[in-house]
Amino acid sequence: MANAAPATRRATIDDASGVARLLHDFNTEFDTPSPGEEVLTSRLRRLLAADDTLAILAGGPPHAVALVTLRPNVWYDGPVALLDELYVAPNLRGRGIGTEVIDLLLDTLRARDVELIEINVDADDLGARRFYERHGFTGVEPTTGDHALYYVKQLER
Amino acid sequence: MANAAPATRRATIDDASGVARLLHDFNTEFDTPSPGEEVLTSRLRRLLAADDTLAILAGGPPHAVALVTLRPNVWYDGPVALLDELYVAPNLRGRGIGTEVIDLLLDTLRARDVELIEINVDADDLGARRFYERHGFTGVEPTTGDHALYYVKQLER
Repeated sequence: MANAAPATRRATIDDASGVARLLHDFNTEFDTPSPGEEVLTSRLRRLLAADDTLAILAGGPPHAVALVTLRPNVWYDGPVALLDELYVAPNLRGRGIGTEVIDLLLDTLRARDVELIEINVDADDLGARRFYERHGFTGVEPTTGDHALYYVKQLER
Repeated sequence: MANAAPATRRATIDDASGVARLLHDFNTEFDTPSPGEEVLTSRLRRLLAADDTLAILAGGPPHAVALVTLRPNVWYDGPVALLDELYVAPNLRGRGIGTEVIDLLLDTLRARDVELIEINVDADDLGARRFYERHGFTGVEPTTGDHALYYVKQLER
Protein backbone atom coordinates (compact mmCIF):
# COMPACT_ATOMS: atom_id res chain seq x y z
CA MET A 1 0.00 0.00 0.00
CA ALA A 2 1.14 3.55 -0.66
CA ASN A 3 -0.07 4.79 2.73
CA ALA A 4 2.33 5.29 5.62
CA ALA A 5 1.73 3.17 8.70
CA PRO A 6 -1.23 4.63 10.61
CA ALA A 7 -0.29 6.86 13.51
CA THR A 8 -1.38 6.28 17.06
CA ARG A 9 -5.17 6.39 16.93
CA ARG A 10 -8.45 5.51 18.55
CA ALA A 11 -9.57 1.98 17.60
CA THR A 12 -12.84 1.46 15.75
CA ILE A 13 -14.99 -1.66 15.54
CA ASP A 14 -12.98 -2.66 12.46
CA ASP A 15 -9.88 -2.87 14.67
CA ALA A 16 -11.45 -5.54 16.91
CA SER A 17 -9.30 -8.35 15.50
CA GLY A 18 -6.10 -6.27 15.78
CA VAL A 19 -6.84 -5.45 19.41
CA ALA A 20 -7.72 -9.09 20.05
CA ARG A 21 -4.42 -10.32 18.59
CA LEU A 22 -2.39 -7.98 20.81
CA LEU A 23 -4.34 -8.89 23.96
CA HIS A 24 -3.91 -12.57 23.17
CA ASP A 25 -0.15 -12.02 22.62
CA PHE A 26 -0.02 -10.13 25.94
CA ASN A 27 -1.49 -13.01 27.90
CA THR A 28 0.56 -15.57 26.02
CA GLU A 29 3.77 -13.67 26.81
CA PHE A 30 2.92 -13.56 30.51
CA ASP A 31 1.54 -17.11 30.76
CA THR A 32 -1.96 -15.88 31.55
CA PRO A 33 -4.94 -17.82 30.19
CA SER A 34 -6.61 -16.30 27.13
CA PRO A 35 -9.93 -17.31 25.58
CA GLY A 36 -8.24 -16.95 22.17
CA GLU A 37 -8.33 -14.34 19.41
CA GLU A 38 -11.68 -15.42 18.00
CA VAL A 39 -13.59 -15.03 21.28
CA LEU A 40 -11.78 -11.77 22.04
CA THR A 41 -12.56 -10.38 18.58
CA SER A 42 -16.23 -11.18 19.03
CA ARG A 43 -16.34 -9.51 22.45
CA LEU A 44 -14.39 -6.49 21.22
CA ARG A 45 -16.74 -5.94 18.29
CA ARG A 46 -19.52 -5.61 20.86
CA LEU A 47 -17.50 -3.60 23.41
CA LEU A 48 -15.94 -1.13 20.94
CA ALA A 49 -19.42 -0.37 19.56
CA ALA A 50 -20.54 0.91 22.97
CA ASP A 51 -19.35 4.07 24.65
CA ASP A 52 -17.91 2.54 27.83
CA THR A 53 -14.93 0.74 26.26
CA LEU A 54 -12.25 2.39 24.18
CA ALA A 55 -8.92 1.32 22.79
CA ILE A 56 -5.88 3.21 21.47
CA LEU A 57 -3.68 1.53 18.86
CA ALA A 58 -0.26 2.29 17.40
CA GLY A 59 1.12 0.96 14.13
CA GLY A 60 -0.33 -0.83 11.14
CA PRO A 61 -0.73 -3.69 11.62
CA PRO A 62 -1.00 -2.56 15.24
CA HIS A 63 1.89 -3.34 17.57
CA ALA A 64 0.66 -1.56 20.71
CA VAL A 65 -2.68 -1.23 22.44
CA ALA A 66 -4.30 0.39 25.46
CA LEU A 67 -7.71 -0.87 26.52
CA VAL A 68 -9.81 1.26 28.83
CA THR A 69 -13.26 0.84 30.34
CA LEU A 70 -15.42 3.58 31.82
CA ARG A 71 -17.86 3.29 34.66
CA PRO A 72 -20.07 5.68 36.59
CA ASN A 73 -18.86 6.95 39.97
CA VAL A 74 -20.75 8.80 42.64
CA TRP A 75 -17.82 11.07 43.52
CA TYR A 76 -17.53 12.60 40.04
CA ASP A 77 -19.97 14.08 37.55
CA GLY A 78 -18.35 12.19 34.68
CA PRO A 79 -17.23 8.58 34.40
CA VAL A 80 -14.10 7.09 35.97
CA ALA A 81 -11.68 5.24 33.67
CA LEU A 82 -9.75 2.06 34.33
CA LEU A 83 -6.75 1.19 32.16
CA ASP A 84 -7.37 -2.53 31.85
CA GLU A 85 -4.46 -3.36 29.57
CA LEU A 86 -1.43 -1.68 28.01
CA TYR A 87 0.79 -3.72 25.72
CA VAL A 88 3.63 -3.00 23.32
CA ALA A 89 5.03 -5.82 21.17
CA PRO A 90 8.33 -7.03 22.72
CA ASN A 91 10.58 -6.13 19.76
CA LEU A 92 9.37 -2.52 19.75
CA ARG A 93 9.73 -1.62 23.42
CA GLY A 94 11.93 1.22 24.63
CA ARG A 95 11.04 3.50 21.70
CA GLY A 96 8.43 5.68 23.37
CA ILE A 97 5.46 3.92 21.80
CA GLY A 98 3.83 3.33 25.19
CA THR A 99 4.13 7.04 25.94
CA GLU A 100 2.48 7.96 22.62
CA VAL A 101 -0.37 5.59 23.38
CA ILE A 102 -0.81 6.93 26.94
CA ASP A 103 -0.71 10.55 25.75
CA LEU A 104 -3.48 10.01 23.20
CA LEU A 105 -5.43 8.01 25.76
CA LEU A 106 -5.31 10.84 28.31
CA ASP A 107 -6.38 13.39 25.67
CA THR A 108 -9.26 11.11 24.67
CA LEU A 109 -10.38 10.69 28.28
CA ARG A 110 -10.22 14.43 29.00
CA ALA A 111 -12.53 14.97 26.02
CA ARG A 112 -14.93 12.52 27.69
CA ASP A 113 -14.90 14.59 30.94
CA VAL A 114 -13.06 11.83 32.80
CA GLU A 115 -11.43 13.20 35.96
CA LEU A 116 -9.83 10.03 37.31
CA ILE A 117 -7.99 7.17 35.65
CA GLU A 118 -7.12 4.07 37.62
CA ILE A 119 -4.82 1.11 37.02
CA ASN A 120 -3.90 -1.99 38.94
CA VAL A 121 -0.17 -2.69 38.77
CA ASP A 122 1.67 -5.74 40.06
CA ALA A 123 3.74 -4.67 43.06
CA ASP A 124 6.79 -6.57 41.74
CA ASP A 125 6.59 -5.01 38.26
CA LEU A 126 8.91 -2.11 38.99
CA GLY A 127 9.30 -1.25 35.30
CA ALA A 128 5.55 -0.76 34.89
CA ARG A 129 5.32 1.17 38.16
CA ARG A 130 8.08 3.53 37.05
CA PHE A 131 6.41 3.97 33.66
CA TYR A 132 3.09 4.93 35.23
CA GLU A 133 4.73 7.17 37.82
CA ARG A 134 6.52 9.02 35.00
CA HIS A 135 3.09 9.61 33.47
CA GLY A 136 1.65 11.10 36.65
CA PHE A 137 0.06 8.05 38.24
CA THR A 138 0.60 7.47 41.95
CA GLY A 139 0.08 4.48 44.18
CA VAL A 140 0.13 6.58 47.34
CA GLU A 141 -2.96 8.16 48.89
CA PRO A 142 -2.01 11.87 49.13
CA THR A 143 -3.71 12.55 52.47
CA THR A 144 -2.60 9.43 54.35
CA GLY A 145 0.61 8.33 52.58
CA ASP A 146 -0.95 4.86 52.51
CA HIS A 147 -1.18 2.76 49.39
CA ALA A 148 -4.16 0.73 48.27
CA LEU A 149 -4.18 -2.93 47.37
CA TYR A 150 -6.28 -4.49 44.65
CA TYR A 151 -8.41 -7.38 45.97
CA VAL A 152 -10.58 -9.69 43.87
CA LYS A 153 -13.11 -12.46 44.34
CA GLN A 154 -14.18 -14.86 41.61
CA LEU A 155 -17.89 -15.69 41.63
CA GLU A 156 -19.02 -19.16 40.67
CA ARG A 157 -21.63 -19.13 37.94
CA MET B 1 -45.18 2.64 61.68
CA ALA B 2 -46.37 -0.88 62.20
CA ASN B 3 -43.86 -2.37 59.78
CA ALA B 4 -40.67 -3.93 60.99
CA ALA B 5 -37.45 -2.26 59.88
CA PRO B 6 -36.77 -3.23 56.28
CA ALA B 7 -34.38 -6.12 55.87
CA THR B 8 -31.20 -5.95 53.86
CA ARG B 9 -32.30 -5.09 50.35
CA ARG B 10 -31.40 -3.74 46.93
CA ALA B 11 -31.73 0.04 46.83
CA THR B 12 -34.16 1.70 44.42
CA ILE B 13 -34.15 5.25 43.06
CA ASP B 14 -36.26 6.27 46.04
CA ASP B 15 -33.35 5.29 48.30
CA ALA B 16 -31.00 7.81 46.67
CA SER B 17 -31.09 10.22 49.61
CA GLY B 18 -30.52 7.42 52.14
CA VAL B 19 -27.51 6.14 50.20
CA ALA B 20 -26.23 9.71 49.84
CA ARG B 21 -26.47 10.32 53.59
CA LEU B 22 -24.45 7.19 54.40
CA LEU B 23 -21.77 7.96 51.80
CA HIS B 24 -21.50 11.50 53.10
CA ASP B 25 -21.19 10.16 56.68
CA PHE B 26 -18.52 7.73 55.45
CA ASN B 27 -16.34 10.46 54.01
CA THR B 28 -16.94 12.73 56.99
CA GLU B 29 -15.86 9.99 59.39
CA PHE B 30 -12.64 9.41 57.45
CA ASP B 31 -11.88 13.10 56.75
CA THR B 32 -12.34 12.63 53.01
CA PRO B 33 -13.90 15.47 50.99
CA SER B 34 -17.58 15.00 50.07
CA PRO B 35 -19.60 17.06 47.61
CA GLY B 36 -22.47 16.93 50.16
CA GLU B 37 -25.69 14.97 50.44
CA GLU B 38 -27.62 17.08 47.94
CA VAL B 39 -25.13 16.58 45.09
CA LEU B 40 -24.75 12.89 45.96
CA THR B 41 -28.53 12.40 46.02
CA SER B 42 -28.86 13.98 42.59
CA ARG B 43 -26.11 11.79 41.15
CA LEU B 44 -27.50 8.66 42.80
CA ARG B 45 -30.97 9.24 41.37
CA ARG B 46 -29.36 9.16 37.94
CA LEU B 47 -26.96 6.28 38.69
CA LEU B 48 -29.47 3.99 40.44
CA ALA B 49 -31.84 4.38 37.46
CA ALA B 50 -29.23 2.82 35.16
CA ASP B 51 -28.12 -0.80 35.17
CA ASP B 52 -24.41 -0.27 35.83
CA THR B 53 -24.69 1.00 39.42
CA LEU B 54 -26.36 -0.86 42.26
CA ALA B 55 -26.56 -0.43 46.00
CA ILE B 56 -27.46 -2.71 48.88
CA LEU B 57 -28.95 -1.18 52.05
CA ALA B 58 -29.61 -2.48 55.54
CA GLY B 59 -32.01 -0.96 58.07
CA GLY B 60 -34.74 1.66 57.96
CA PRO B 61 -33.67 4.40 57.96
CA PRO B 62 -30.65 2.71 56.40
CA HIS B 63 -27.55 2.31 58.54
CA ALA B 64 -25.35 0.35 56.11
CA VAL B 65 -24.66 0.54 52.39
CA ALA B 66 -22.64 -1.16 49.68
CA LEU B 67 -22.23 0.70 46.39
CA VAL B 68 -21.12 -1.23 43.33
CA THR B 69 -20.47 -0.27 39.73
CA LEU B 70 -20.32 -2.63 36.78
CA ARG B 71 -18.20 -2.25 33.66
CA PRO B 72 -17.55 -4.34 30.59
CA ASN B 73 -14.41 -6.47 30.46
CA VAL B 74 -12.84 -8.26 27.54
CA TRP B 75 -11.82 -11.30 29.60
CA TYR B 76 -15.39 -12.19 30.65
CA ASP B 77 -18.70 -12.54 28.86
CA GLY B 78 -20.50 -10.60 31.58
CA PRO B 79 -19.60 -7.39 33.38
CA VAL B 80 -16.98 -7.05 36.10
CA ALA B 81 -18.05 -5.45 39.40
CA LEU B 82 -16.15 -3.02 41.59
CA LEU B 83 -17.21 -2.54 45.20
CA ASP B 84 -16.73 1.22 45.39
CA GLU B 85 -17.92 1.69 48.97
CA LEU B 86 -19.01 -0.37 51.96
CA TYR B 87 -20.09 1.46 55.10
CA VAL B 88 -21.79 0.51 58.35
CA ALA B 89 -22.75 3.24 60.84
CA PRO B 90 -20.16 3.31 63.67
CA ASN B 91 -22.57 2.44 66.50
CA LEU B 92 -23.78 -0.70 64.69
CA ARG B 93 -20.48 -2.32 63.76
CA GLY B 94 -19.48 -5.77 64.92
CA ARG B 95 -23.01 -7.19 64.58
CA GLY B 96 -22.64 -8.94 61.23
CA ILE B 97 -24.46 -6.24 59.25
CA GLY B 98 -21.53 -5.89 56.81
CA THR B 99 -21.67 -9.63 56.18
CA GLU B 100 -25.43 -9.51 55.49
CA VAL B 101 -24.87 -6.70 53.01
CA ILE B 102 -21.99 -8.51 51.28
CA ASP B 103 -23.95 -11.77 51.09
CA LEU B 104 -26.91 -10.09 49.36
CA LEU B 105 -24.54 -8.18 47.13
CA LEU B 106 -22.80 -11.37 45.96
CA ASP B 107 -26.17 -13.05 45.29
CA THR B 108 -27.27 -10.00 43.31
CA LEU B 109 -24.08 -9.98 41.25
CA ARG B 110 -24.28 -13.70 40.51
CA ALA B 111 -27.79 -13.08 39.15
CA ARG B 112 -26.25 -10.49 36.83
CA ASP B 113 -23.70 -13.05 35.51
CA VAL B 114 -20.83 -11.24 37.17
CA GLU B 115 -17.78 -13.53 37.48
CA LEU B 116 -15.33 -11.14 39.15
CA ILE B 117 -15.72 -8.56 41.89
CA GLU B 118 -12.89 -6.18 42.68
CA ILE B 119 -12.15 -3.82 45.55
CA ASN B 120 -9.35 -1.43 46.40
CA VAL B 121 -8.39 -1.67 50.07
CA ASP B 122 -5.96 0.56 51.96
CA ALA B 123 -2.89 -1.52 52.80
CA ASP B 124 -2.89 -0.23 56.38
CA ASP B 125 -6.57 -1.03 56.96
CA LEU B 126 -6.01 -4.50 58.39
CA GLY B 127 -9.58 -4.72 59.69
CA ALA B 128 -11.03 -4.19 56.23
CA ARG B 129 -8.51 -6.57 54.67
CA ARG B 130 -9.42 -9.32 57.18
CA PHE B 131 -13.13 -8.69 56.56
CA TYR B 132 -12.74 -9.08 52.78
CA GLU B 133 -10.44 -12.08 53.14
CA ARG B 134 -13.07 -13.78 55.32
CA HIS B 135 -15.53 -13.21 52.47
CA GLY B 136 -13.29 -14.85 49.89
CA PHE B 137 -11.45 -11.86 48.47
CA THR B 138 -7.70 -12.10 47.96
CA GLY B 139 -5.01 -9.54 47.34
CA VAL B 140 -2.58 -12.16 46.06
CA GLU B 141 -2.31 -13.17 42.42
CA PRO B 142 -2.73 -16.97 42.53
CA THR B 143 -0.21 -17.81 39.81
CA THR B 144 2.62 -15.46 40.84
CA GLY B 145 2.04 -14.85 44.58
CA ASP B 146 2.42 -11.15 43.80
CA HIS B 147 -0.06 -8.56 44.91
CA ALA B 148 -1.35 -5.67 42.82
CA LEU B 149 -1.31 -2.02 43.77
CA TYR B 150 -4.01 0.48 42.90
CA TYR B 151 -2.61 3.51 41.04
CA VAL B 152 -4.55 6.62 40.07
CA LYS B 153 -4.08 9.79 38.07
CA GLN B 154 -6.32 12.83 38.33
CA LEU B 155 -7.04 14.53 35.00
CA GLU B 156 -7.36 18.29 34.88
CA ARG B 157 -10.57 19.41 33.21
